Amino acid sequence: MHETRQQLIVVGLRLMLQRGYHALGLQEILAEAGVPKGSFYHHFASKEDFALQVIDAYQRRVHELLEATLTDVRHPPLDRVRNFFSGVREAYEMEGYLGCFLGSLGQELSGTNERFRHKIDDCLTAIAAAHAVCLEEARVRGDLPSTCDARRTAELLVNAWEGAALRSRLLRSARPLDEILDFCLAAMASR
Amino acid sequence: MHETRQQLIVVGLRLMLQRGYHALGLQEILAEAGVPKGSFYHHFASKEDFALQVIDAYQRRVHELLEATLTDVRHPPLDRVRNFFSGVREAYEMEGYLGCFLGSLGQELSGTNERFRHKIDDCLTAIAAAHAVCLEEARVRGDLPSTCDARRTAELLVNAWEGAALRSRLLRSARPLDEILDFCLAAMASR
Repeated sequence: MHETRQQLIVVGLRLMLQRGYHALGLQEILAEAGVPKGSFYHHFASKEDFALQVIDAYQRRVHELLEATLTDVRHPPLDRVRNFFSGVREAYEMEGYLGCFLGSLGQELSGTNERFRHKIDDCLTAIAAAHAVCLEEARVRGDLPSTCDARRTAELLVNAWEGAALRSRLLRSARPLDEILDFCLAAMASR
Repeated sequence: MHETRQQLIVVGLRLMLQRGYHALGLQEILAEAGVPKGSFYHHFASKEDFALQVIDAYQRRVHELLEATLTDVRHPPLDRVRNFFSGVREAYEMEGYLGCFLGSLGQELSGTNERFRHKIDDCLTAIAAAHAVCLEEARVRGDLPSTCDARRTAELLVNAWEGAALRSRLLRSARPLDEILDFCLAAMASR
């Protein structure tokens, strides 16, 4: 990826996670990245196009973590699921507990912008789908009840996590994340 | 409450739930409410002050529903909890499934504005506290395990709901709400 483009995306992700989309001016992004306006429009058609590409970059990071955790067959499948969320929690911690970028931008923009609404829902659906594979493996080997609907349970887990991520952002704390993960994993196993 | 002030708050709540805080211009609110700018500043010190008062108005509605459902002793306590969330779900449905105003504004503003961050967390804490009373009653009468920590469980329930509300906003659907409520209530009872 072109260095300037990459730098703009890294800065954009950091600033947008904190301030959101509308409150963040293009000038601030350019000043922080040390990039002139012309270069920005060389790489991005508009602020909206830029934000959509920032989401793509965020989602690539999520998929790298999904890959690193959920396919690591040295661990039983439910441990892999826990490892994924532990990795996300670590990223949140490094960012000062600002929650989930998808949830944050999803809330701000999905009331009026259909492109963001569908894109962010697709991202969450893909994250849940990756977990569903692990949960199905857990079901087959008897770590989850045989009646467990892996896909639906994965969606529940991702959705509950998103709520805990909002609360983590409000409290600047990991506590809601740890508690929801313990609660959901215990609930899934005992259903 | 003064009629103009009330009208501005009703319009503000509707528009802000859809568009968020920063994307919504004061002119749009004034035009929609049919109120001149001078009147706005007679009632509100600033756009921020206005939004904080819109949150107060939203929270008053939530507390009316909490009161109407959680204290209705004709029903067992866990049914009252379900009735509250059914009532919230009905409100979301009437609004076209735009999710929770607290979650939406909390995500957009809590990264940079401490007043909104603390206020919205306080609102969610108060909602959880009201549920904790019901859950403790359920625990005492044996509808929840004797080891259940009512306060912590109520926080989990509210947080998980917030995540489902985000997903409901993304999907414009009640499904995530219905599924998370069933999952959480079953999980609480079986812990």
